[in-house]
Amino acid sequence: MAVLPALDDLITQLAQLPGIGRKSAQRLAIYILKSKNGFADKLVDAIINIKENTMFCKRCHNISETEECHICRDPKRDNSKICVVEDIVDILAIEGSREYNGLYHVLGGVISPLAGVSAAALNINSLMERVTFENISEVLLALNLSTEGEATMIYLSQMLHEKNVEVTRIAHGVPLGSHLEFVDQTTIGRAIAARQKI
Amino acid sequence: MAVLPALDDLITQLAQLPGIGRKSAQRLAIYILKSKNGFADKLVDAIINIKENTMFCKRCHNISETEECHICRDPKRDNSKICVVEDIVDILAIEGSREYNGLYHVLGGVISPLAGVSAAALNINSLMERVTFENISEVLLALNLSTEGEATMIYLSQMLHEKNVEVTRIAHGVPLGSHLEFVDQTTIGRAIAARQKI
Repeated sequence: MAVLPALDDLITQLAQLPGIGRKSAQRLAIYILKSKNGFADKLVDAIINIKENTMFCKRCHNISETEECHICRDPKRDNSKICVVEDIVDILAIEGSREYNGLYHVLGGVISPLAGVSAAALNINSLMERVTFENISEVLLALNLSTEGEATMIYLSQMLHEKNVEVTRIAHGVPLGSHLEFVDQTTIGRAIAARQKI
Repeated sequence: MAVLPALDDLITQLAQLPGIGRKSAQRLAIYILKSKNGFADKLVDAIINIKENTMFCKRCHNISETEECHICRDPKRDNSKICVVEDIVDILAIEGSREYNGLYHVLGGVISPLAGVSAAALNINSLMERVTFENISEVLLALNLSTEGEATMIYLSQMLHEKNVEVTRIAHGVPLGSHLEFVDQTTIGRAIAARQKI
């Protein structure tokens, strides 16, 4: 296939991004090639900026421009609550809901023996230290509901109960706007088991 | 939504790419943020390289590192044939088939009065010049089969017939590997009308 090396190289790099196949990478590369108004420069600057001027918050492991992230430093946030998430992207999702005003703790994954991820590889020790020293009253577990996520939540809740802290988890049930007939059986089962009085 | 400005900026830039929504852009941004082994540097270099070291071939308007692109300069290619495509990405698709060994001509779009694209905005004059001066025997029209693509093919074929050159178009029909029951009626109609003796 006679592709110009410069184009082939960009396609190869873009195709490494998650969810981007070779064909999508071709489209993106051609778009970048033909882009005007300095889009490519802005994209390059944004990538360089995020790689060079950000770090991970030493307290909650969120992305940050300073040693402690903007959420940890925000005096308006309720610093007696910690929401435990797998990944930084989950913080974006929860912040988008505007329903939570406490702090976060990014685990960096879930315990998964098959994938070779042990508890020691996650930010669990630092979570326990925070619960011990930061006067935390509630830890909200907001991990994804995979088998590994469930197992990690059970593991964490056992450790947390020893710390005399309230441990909660986000509700799982039928998502808003969905039709019952298209919701999977396990979710419906969960929603029935967790039914509430009205 | 409390998002770090550096992260928000990268998400905003990535969300401008075609087919990438805000949620996908978040995933890509976090991937780039956490990437290792110099992936971000390689991506940045590839973008800068394609913007700074490439231009459009002055003969066929393909992407090129020199005044004439690597396909136009290739002595092994049949320079009596021109394949007319809408966009550079179509050249990648046709090259991938390894079925065509002639030259190309990138129109840069199709005639679309609704989108404000007139024939004058496309690389049609340069195509006619090439047909006149380059000793071309066949022009293969490989535009997408939209209404505008069809109209542009008719427009081009009328102009080209005056030049005493053979004008062909790629075959449209049932794609390989597809099941008839899932193919749309217009395609089946085309495939029947263009049926071949075996």
